[in-house]
Amino acid sequence: SELIRNFKDSLTTVYSAIEEADFLAIDGEFSGISDGPNVSALTNGLDTPEERYMKLKKHSMDFLLFQFGLCTFTYDEAASEYVIKTFNFYIFPKPFNRTSPDIKFICQSSSIDFLASQGFDFNKVFRHGIPYLNQEEEVQLREQYEERRNQSNGSGTTSYISPNANKGLGGVPEEHRDYIKRVMFPKGLHVETLETDKKERYIQISKVDDEERKRRERQKQEREQEELNDAVGFSRVIHAISKSVSGMLRNLHVSTHDAIFFLPHPQDLNDFKEVTQCVFPRLLDTKLMATTQPFKELINNTSLAELQKQLKESPFKPPKVVTAGGFPSYDTAQEQLHEAGYDAYITGLCFISMANYLGTFLTPPKGHIPARSKLIEPFFNKLFLMRIIDIPYLNISGPDLQPKRDHVLYVTFPKEWKTSDLYQLFSAFGNIQVSWIDDTSAFVCLSQTDQVQIAMNTSRYAESYRIQTYAEYLQGRRHVRENQAQGSQAWGEDGWVKPHYAPVPGTAAGDYRSSSGKRSISPIQEEQAQTTPTDGWSGNTHTHTHPDQGSKKIKTDGMHTLEDGMFEVLLVTV
Amino acid sequence: SELIRNFKDSLTTVYSAIEEADFLAIDGEFSGISDGPNVSALTNGLDTPEERYMKLKKHSMDFLLFQFGLCTFTYDEAASEYVIKTFNFYIFPKPFNRTSPDIKFICQSSSIDFLASQGFDFNKVFRHGIPYLNQEEEVQLREQYEERRNQSNGSGTTSYISPNANKGLGGVPEEHRDYIKRVMFPKGLHVETLETDKKERYIQISKVDDEERKRRERQKQEREQEELNDAVGFSRVIHAISKSVSGMLRNLHVSTHDAIFFLPHPQDLNDFKEVTQCVFPRLLDTKLMATTQPFKELINNTSLAELQKQLKESPFKPPKVVTAGGFPSYDTAQEQLHEAGYDAYITGLCFISMANYLGTFLTPPKGHIPARSKLIEPFFNKLFLMRIIDIPYLNISGPDLQPKRDHVLYVTFPKEWKTSDLYQLFSAFGNIQVSWIDDTSAFVCLSQTDQVQIAMNTSRYAESYRIQTYAEYLQGRRHVRENQAQGSQAWGEDGWVKPHYAPVPGTAAGDYRSSSGKRSISPIQEEQAQTTPTDGWSGNTHTHTHPDQGSKKIKTDGMHTLEDGMFEVLLVTV
Repeated sequence: SELIRNFKDSLTTVYSAIEEADFLAIDGEFSGISDGPNVSALTNGLDTPEERYMKLKKHSMDFLLFQFGLCTFTYDEAASEYVIKTFNFYIFPKPFNRTSPDIKFICQSSSIDFLASQGFDFNKVFRHGIPYLNQEEEVQLREQYEERRNQSNGSGTTSYISPNANKGLGGVPEEHRDYIKRVMFPKGLHVETLETDKKERYIQISKVDDEERKRRERQKQEREQEELNDAVGFSRVIHAISKSVSGMLRNLHVSTHDAIFFLPHPQDLNDFKEVTQCVFPRLLDTKLMATTQPFKELINNTSLAELQKQLKESPFKPPKVVTAGGFPSYDTAQEQLHEAGYDAYITGLCFISMANYLGTFLTPPKGHIPARSKLIEPFFNKLFLMRIIDIPYLNISGPDLQPKRDHVLYVTFPKEWKTSDLYQLFSAFGNIQVSWIDDTSAFVCLSQTDQVQIAMNTSRYAESYRIQTYAEYLQGRRHVRENQAQGSQAWGEDGWVKPHYAPVPGTAAGDYRSSSGKRSISPIQEEQAQTTPTDGWSGNTHTHTHPDQGSKKIKTDGMHTLEDGMFEVLLVTV
Repeated sequence: SELIRNFKDSLTTVYSAIEEADFLAIDGEFSGISDGPNVSALTNGLDTPEERYMKLKKHSMDFLLFQFGLCTFTYDEAASEYVIKTFNFYIFPKPFNRTSPDIKFICQSSSIDFLASQGFDFNKVFRHGIPYLNQEEEVQLREQYEERRNQSNGSGTTSYISPNANKGLGGVPEEHRDYIKRVMFPKGLHVETLETDKKERYIQISKVDDEERKRRERQKQEREQEELNDAVGFSRVIHAISKSVSGMLRNLHVSTHDAIFFLPHPQDLNDFKEVTQCVFPRLLDTKLMATTQPFKELINNTSLAELQKQLKESPFKPPKVVTAGGFPSYDTAQEQLHEAGYDAYITGLCFISMANYLGTFLTPPKGHIPARSKLIEPFFNKLFLMRIIDIPYLNISGPDLQPKRDHVLYVTFPKEWKTSDLYQLFSAFGNIQVSWIDDTSAFVCLSQTDQVQIAMNTSRYAESYRIQTYAEYLQGRRHVRENQAQGSQAWGEDGWVKPHYAPVPGTAAGDYRSSSGKRSISPIQEEQAQTTPTDGWSGNTHTHTHPDQGSKKIKTDGMHTLEDGMFEVLLVTV
């Protein structure tokens, strides 16, 4: 198809754009979002990161990536501006031959309707989408070809009947053997299974001499190699990104929700972090950045379109960018959201504005802060966590924050209860915060920890409800989980669909560089820092925003510096 | 959208085409087929109809119907030809408001790729597809509107704040109440939630007097009724078909596999039959017809395209049809398969050829056999069953055939075993037929029943394998099923998706007419008849092919006759 030919022709352009870039931004359009009402209903403001990961995983793994947007940003020192190149890849896991996996994927009508209303071209995806394979499928396919090749080099019973291979006549009835021997000798028979345009298979048998046979064999191998490359398809772009940059990722509307889309879904959160670190060792979530100090107070809406608007206005400055010749040029005055390339572009702009704003705190202030600046370091490898009260992000490069939850109660009650019943129950304790778990249970955050014991005492003889401390609740869950683990099917797959590591393949699991070491700051310290509005980053992290103080420490931490020649890559934020 | 406006404008045309037709043919294009390798692997040549139904149900329930094709055939006596009208409906369950269900559906990449290669327009589906609701959703929505209307007629706290309703000010802070009272009196406040083009919601508050308030209320109700009609959308076509014709259905590539697509998926086969009878009381599967005597011997490929080709040639005759003015005209010389309307059209042509062929057996022969002829009766309400060795069809209007399986053995063995091992094991018994169940079990059909005891005896001391008679096997399954039923989750849903009765809604469950009574022929008789190649229909059924003999009996059976004024409807067959 034309798009695939285009894709193959443009691969070198893609590669070189990636190679030369200071940073990349990416975005994707999917067949569903994991943040629908189904998931909201399941998630809880006091989920642990592990729980949240499991819930998101369960709800996002079977959506499909339709379009992948890539925008590369290269800083031109002389002109003091970024040169950008934008790519939109329509991708689709078209079965490439009869034995390739026939992937089932889920569409959500609201997401499809939304894309449709934005003028998204589904015909392009389904008719001309670039195929891809994940790492595992690619290895399998290579082995398959290899095996076939070995077979045909061997006894010749599969593709080639070698002239003297009487063994190959075993299945031929006695009375026909003479005829077969005659037509086979001195020339070989070249047997090949081909397909018509209508996908009807037929066997082509032709008489060839040894030289011709070898020529055809060579041809066939070349064709197979080509076929293999085509099948790997879009994965080659991801390979390139993963190999040559320090990492990147994208979050659609929902940050971590979507980060999970782009990656395989390992069994647990730690494995997910490892894979993410490996594929995108240096990724930045612009939504997380925008919700962190010093941006938090300045930005009131972090949806991508709104974020981009706010970052054009004071105290921020619109970044200076110019489109490279021959590349699609976007006009931010006309919204073209939800073409993935445009969203990636916007994400890059947001990053530049925020990065440059950090430069205003330096003495003397700097107008341009490069993506590889140490000022950016604190924002790397953290994914925004939606709707968790006390954990702002998922820490990809280390253990997660473990906020104290000793002011939290776990309350169970009759299913008729409403939020107002909980307010009434705890009316003596002033402000409370309720996080529903299900119809008959909720977390209740008290404003003061010392109220917990009072609440526990009062509830001792209650009949209609029951209260546990958060610690007791965790203890109970652990028991349940251990029992489930013995029953083995906890958090298992749905059964009906073979787990496939769609949508984005090509995660080079062998390529893991332990790039940064664990952050030296303790999670609890950081968590406390979050509660100090004027200074979002405390402890060692703080030194990153003042490079003069902290640079040595960073180097000894093994973090990337300017000299590493590594690229930064941005997460889109919507 | 334009298509939906088109749809609404054309509804009367659709209705009258359905009303005037002698028979209808339908077809659908789906997001997946239940007959993929996954299902083949699950199904077994000796499945019972119940087992097969459960397997198909599990594998087809979450696919989506993209396009519905309808072709109406009206016989013009004067011109001795059929006048046809073809409709293609693109349908999509677009969420029609914020509270409507957000349907998840499954796409299979092979099916999508196939449709794409046929030039199928996915953009039309997703951008302009006609929405629909199933019966249950429609009732829910009506109730929702009703409830809201009652609320706004009552206390006025939702849409309308009535001038004197001080109660409505309860939530307003004391210091603002005076102001609110002032602006609310003497005119009411009309409060309405609206949406911008970008789907951002806003509240419009306007001051109105009582008359204006009532006018707006009326307007709103009309708008809601319109909205409801729009939401019910395509379902209205199904309602019309179901009400005014004796039934119809369609089978895509796989007959019963796809019949299941068009209907809700009740818990068990008997309920499915009842629903099917109710929605399509008189349906005919052309694939089943083509694989039954006297067609069986004359037709060697029953895929729709091939079937249509064969039915143009002797001994069949191409039917005489003409397209009604203003309707799309198809040329069968140019294949346009896999537009649903075209496939429905072709199906109708196949039916006419086969029906007319039955007329050649009459004395004197008749050239035109109408769809309501008694010659057709034996073919009604039977759905082709793919790949079941000894049960050719699912009998919608009665109990299924229960072939004797006393020559069948159930064999379990180590997972290393291959078909050749089974052949070797039973080498003493001549020809056997192997139906794999899974890695470690299979059915083996022996050619003679008296061999069964010998096989059982020989196997008594075997260690690596185990043999049971089919009766013993059934007994064992029954035990398992009873135990599962106690555990309740047997054959349950997958959990992640709320069961939705997509794709085709509007099954008028209250509309069931017990049209035919059970067929008087015993299943076993029919089954034996199938084994008599020259006469596919024995016993009473046979009388249907000789109307002179059987017509009385049919009438007393309560079956539809010419006088019923009922239409026949055809199943597509591919």
